[in-house]
Amino acid sequence: MSNKVKIGLSNKHLHLQQADVDTLFGKGHQLTPTKDLTQPGQFACEEKVDIVGPKGVLKGIRVLGPVRPETQVELAATDARGVGIKAPVRESGKLSGTPGCKLIGPAGEVELDHGVIVALRHVHLSPSQAEVLNVKDKDFVSVKVEGERGLIFNNVLVRSGAAHNGEIHLDTDEGNAAGLGTDSVGEVIKSL
Amino acid sequence: MSNKVKIGLSNKHLHLQQADVDTLFGKGHQLTPTKDLTQPGQFACEEKVDIVGPKGVLKGIRVLGPVRPETQVELAATDARGVGIKAPVRESGKLSGTPGCKLIGPAGEVELDHGVIVALRHVHLSPSQAEVLNVKDKDFVSVKVEGERGLIFNNVLVRSGAAHNGEIHLDTDEGNAAGLGTDSVGEVIKSL
Repeated sequence: MSNKVKIGLSNKHLHLQQADVDTLFGKGHQLTPTKDLTQPGQFACEEKVDIVGPKGVLKGIRVLGPVRPETQVELAATDARGVGIKAPVRESGKLSGTPGCKLIGPAGEVELDHGVIVALRHVHLSPSQAEVLNVKDKDFVSVKVEGERGLIFNNVLVRSGAAHNGEIHLDTDEGNAAGLGTDSVGEVIKSL
Repeated sequence: MSNKVKIGLSNKHLHLQQADVDTLFGKGHQLTPTKDLTQPGQFACEEKVDIVGPKGVLKGIRVLGPVRPETQVELAATDARGVGIKAPVRESGKLSGTPGCKLIGPAGEVELDHGVIVALRHVHLSPSQAEVLNVKDKDFVSVKVEGERGLIFNNVLVRSGAAHNGEIHLDTDEGNAAGLGTDSVGEVIKSL
């Protein structure tokens, strides 16, 4: 294995707790998987919701499964600004003090008082991949990408363990700023 | 002077040729300056237009003056994708082979057959600033920014001459990917 890792570009999406699935899609509703994601056990769902902020609505935003202990909305900073939500950059699951929003589904609405973030860029690595790259869970690395908008992302969080598989996760702002597409790769290098 | 240069974040905007000002705002209309920009002789205008692509409309987009020999629309890649325009990354003025769009003003519409670009990131430097930084017009440099989304932009074009004044020009995708605001600065470093 080289130090090249494929890049996964995350469009705006959300994860739901079961209570919010019930409210948005109907009591006892189960999320419907449509596509497995690269990370083991994670999947895109058929379900979509509208996300409402003080200045506008993001319509038809994809739910990712499985359900989680807490609902989390992940927007690019451009998306968040567009609907008037001041979303901070956060690691997944670290939702204390984050702003909320309204979610609208076919069966009902949820008023979140927190849970909207811009995802902290990160790289998922299996234990063996982390070993080859000589990094460990919670390290920070840099990621270099080539091309006419080539750049080096600093402060990229390593997430490694049994539930992880080689993939650099960036959002659409980061992907567009770097000119990346669906087949892009990044080089994991020592933190600069 | 250190190698720190202030960053100017460009929101989507356009430059117009006089013939298009005539069509959009009325025969003989003169652009109305509202604010001088950092680059000598450049200014924001009161005038706004709607930009129409195959998949949507960007409403109320700011015109920058003065008029130019050729109309040029500058969008972030996120904006362009949102309205279905496949805009390439280009240096200002290099519009051959670029896609067009429709412009709608209060007095009429213009159907552009080319002119929509994503701006190539660049740094404006006065001749004395360029001398201090030991770079010249048309060089490429890298620009490092600090912070939780800190990164190093490679392939940053130097534009230097009498009409230029120290400012790194990035678009909203680049600004959001790097977590930049209105008071951000970048460090101009040797091309990586």
